[in-house]
Amino acid sequence: MGKNIFFEKKGPFLINNLYNKSKIKKIKIFDIKILEQAKTDDLTFLDNVNYANAAKTTKALFCLTTEKLKDYLPKKCEPLLVGNVLVELCKIVRKFYPNADVDKPDLSLKSPKKNNYLKVKFGNNVLLGNKCKIGKNTIIGSNTIIEQNVLIGDNCTIGSQVVVKNSFIGNNVVIQDGCKIGLKGFGFIPLKGKNLRFPHIGKVLIKDNAELGANCTIDRGSISDTVIGENTFLDNQVHVAHNVKIGNNCMIAGQVGFAGSSVIGDSVSIGGQAGVSGHLKIGNNVKIGGGSGVVKDIKDNSVVMGYPAVPLKNFIRNLKK
Amino acid sequence: MGKNIFFEKKGPFLINNLYNKSKIKKIKIFDIKILEQAKTDDLTFLDNVNYANAAKTTKALFCLTTEKLKDYLPKKCEPLLVGNVLVELCKIVRKFYPNADVDKPDLSLKSPKKNNYLKVKFGNNVLLGNKCKIGKNTIIGSNTIIEQNVLIGDNCTIGSQVVVKNSFIGNNVVIQDGCKIGLKGFGFIPLKGKNLRFPHIGKVLIKDNAELGANCTIDRGSISDTVIGENTFLDNQVHVAHNVKIGNNCMIAGQVGFAGSSVIGDSVSIGGQAGVSGHLKIGNNVKIGGGSGVVKDIKDNSVVMGYPAVPLKNFIRNLKK
Amino acid sequence: MGKNIFFEKKGPFLINNLYNKSKIKKIKIFDIKILEQAKTDDLTFLDNVNYANAAKTTKALFCLTTEKLKDYLPKKCEPLLVGNVLVELCKIVRKFYPNADVDKPDLSLKSPKKNNYLKVKFGNNVLLGNKCKIGKNTIIGSNTIIEQNVLIGDNCTIGSQVVVKNSFIGNNVVIQDGCKIGLKGFGFIPLKGKNLRFPHIGKVLIKDNAELGANCTIDRGSISDTVIGENTFLDNQVHVAHNVKIGNNCMIAGQVGFAGSSVIGDSVSIGGQAGVSGHLKIGNNVKIGGGSGVVKDIKDNSVVMGYPAVPLKNFIRNLKK
Repeated sequence: MGKNIFFEKKGPFLINNLYNKSKIKKIKIFDIKILEQAKTDDLTFLDNVNYANAAKTTKALFCLTTEKLKDYLPKKCEPLLVGNVLVELCKIVRKFYPNADVDKPDLSLKSPKKNNYLKVKFGNNVLLGNKCKIGKNTIIGSNTIIEQNVLIGDNCTIGSQVVVKNSFIGNNVVIQDGCKIGLKGFGFIPLKGKNLRFPHIGKVLIKDNAELGANCTIDRGSISDTVIGENTFLDNQVHVAHNVKIGNNCMIAGQVGFAGSSVIGDSVSIGGQAGVSGHLKIGNNVKIGGGSGVVKDIKDNSVVMGYPAVPLKNFIRNLKK
Repeated sequence: MGKNIFFEKKGPFLINNLYNKSKIKKIKIFDIKILEQAKTDDLTFLDNVNYANAAKTTKALFCLTTEKLKDYLPKKCEPLLVGNVLVELCKIVRKFYPNADVDKPDLSLKSPKKNNYLKVKFGNNVLLGNKCKIGKNTIIGSNTIIEQNVLIGDNCTIGSQVVVKNSFIGNNVVIQDGCKIGLKGFGFIPLKGKNLRFPHIGKVLIKDNAELGANCTIDRGSISDTVIGENTFLDNQVHVAHNVKIGNNCMIAGQVGFAGSSVIGDSVSIGGQAGVSGHLKIGNNVKIGGGSGVVKDIKDNSVVMGYPAVPLKNFIRNLKK
Repeated sequence: MGKNIFFEKKGPFLINNLYNKSKIKKIKIFDIKILEQAKTDDLTFLDNVNYANAAKTTKALFCLTTEKLKDYLPKKCEPLLVGNVLVELCKIVRKFYPNADVDKPDLSLKSPKKNNYLKVKFGNNVLLGNKCKIGKNTIIGSNTIIEQNVLIGDNCTIGSQVVVKNSFIGNNVVIQDGCKIGLKGFGFIPLKGKNLRFPHIGKVLIKDNAELGANCTIDRGSISDTVIGENTFLDNQVHVAHNVKIGNNCMIAGQVGFAGSSVIGDSVSIGGQAGVSGHLKIGNNVKIGGGSGVVKDIKDNSVVMGYPAVPLKNFIRNLKK
């Protein structure tokens, strides 16, 4: 992951300033990371049995979790027991990242200085934030906004009236008009009168040769990243929530929606208006019929359809009843 | 409601110029209002038995309605009998409000004069209509359009490439990039060759602490208002049709759609891609599963899922058949 | 169809440079057209038995097709046999139209010169491409982009933050804010690592008196056109894929999606969030319930609902089981 270039970070904090019942007191914590990415000076969290395998090999020395889940952690990792992992995590992430819970529009935007972008073509009224980098032979359409620190590769075509923030975009990527990429996702702790927004400190990664249709919305990750794989094509009005990872060579038809944190394999095809629930694992080469509602993990090479989605054979058999 | 600041109003009209078979002739009618809001010098209408209770206590002296529904009206209210309430209502509303049936883009838009908005932060190319008011510490993103007479409260964050018209927005509201708020809804009398558009003279009310995700569309009301309650959060690409009233503390996931005039209680949560049909009443604390299609009223505290939506227990039982 | 004013065209090409096993060698081919529109110097294609009737009367002398389908062609038309019609077609269309596979933003955009548009009203920051024509009494909202060669009729209302390209728009058309019209559709030959994009050389035709709600996406045709019929109204966030033809006097509610190449009759009404699969024929006066998933052709005057959609009677009967 490296340094977070998109959000101001505070800290380090002593572990007992983050969780006052920790057995060890004086260790400095530098960041919050998911189980797989945490190093020894990061804090991690385990809130869902789906992530038990990742827990077993985490390098973190401290993990927010519950009594019920704590035994999945390795011995060298101290479980920091809480009633609700996400609530406590939210409070701690807000300490480290005080400005990642609401997307304040970038006030550093300016018209591109042609000298800085000799090999980039711009439409009219393009606005660029500080320090964003754009590769050669890329073209950016009119009225499009690229916020600060965004990286865009070579030979990309970014349409008109697009917004990109908190994102790394590869080479040969096509983004059609009206897409909104890298915005804060739909994550918060519900509290009557004033919900507590979960900071979104991840980014959006769009890999080489990917394509997004018009008016898609791709939210950035909360703690990890949202990923659109290589040569994966999305049709119009697709919604990809925070932390979703879509593999390579996928085909996602119009108006499909992904809830948060699901992981989609390679070469998956999804028909129009289908929905994929949160925290699922969809295998490689899976085909999901249009309009389906996927609520369970799906194994490699499966073909499913229906609401809820079932193997296509079962769907057809049920119709005949 | 007070005076309509968004649409030019004609009148008053004598009742017998609006409905020539009225028993009383010379009374002046000043406006058209829904049953609950009509005063003695307004005309109201009753076109659906769902509104029978509101009919019983209306203060209006005249009500467009049908032979079948007229007995729900109080004695002091004269029923103006017609074959099709909405067709006749449409014609009368068009007399009062000749400019509310098509959204002509606001040609009064100008760049903000900094002196008029000393405590507001603006991105680039923001356009404001005449007489719109924006509270302190509000920030408005680039390329966003706020049309005339719109009111926006304090501490709001309005993203980029947003359009807001015919709306009152409270304090601490967050509106993400690409939202279109306060536009004319999908209401018209179908006529071969040239539909007759229903004027939309209501507004959108977004209450304190609400949040809208990217690329949402919130249509204004036709006669009454469209309302998003306090601390209610909408995810990306949500569609809210005219006259819908969503309560406080609700959570509405991505790509949910509401057809016209439904009333949603407080603390309702709705999963992604669910749809709510028109003219329904959804109680408080209701949970609606993702992808559901709600076609009936739902009582307080219910949990429903399915297409059409049924109590969750039934949904699960049906799956096992 | 006439000349394609939107895309640069190469050719003519000798038939044996397009398909080297052709019996006739030296005939020049000027364009690629669908079966109904091809003339004797065009190449056509037949890839689906649904189009057998159109095949029987095509005027083309050459038709890309398969062993299985070739007998539907008239005698004077030589079948050019291939394994996969769309793959070979894609390669040939790319020869004729080298610039129609990615939507490069129009760099000819400029602010309108008032003298050229004396009877048109413009908001702020409107951008027009070369040679676009706009009829009298049309109004174009702020930040809207009309790309080169687009034709817009009289008395239209085009909202703010709209993009229109590769389109002919009739008279009295209303397009609400945020629509994206005439973009390349979701058509490509899947190839690992780098999909082969299908050129989209068709346009969007929006006929008189039609209306589109906010944030709709209407893709242009691949070989033929995408059509929105007269006095047909679309609500917000509707997605219309390439080549779809919607008849006159239709009512399409919010968030409906159409997959590619379906043909919808006149006076069809479709409820919110319904989806129509690709290559279907929906008759006249059909009513499709909200949330339905249509996967088969539907006859005139039918009322259907469900996923998959069935006659309404059956849908209701199935619920009672």
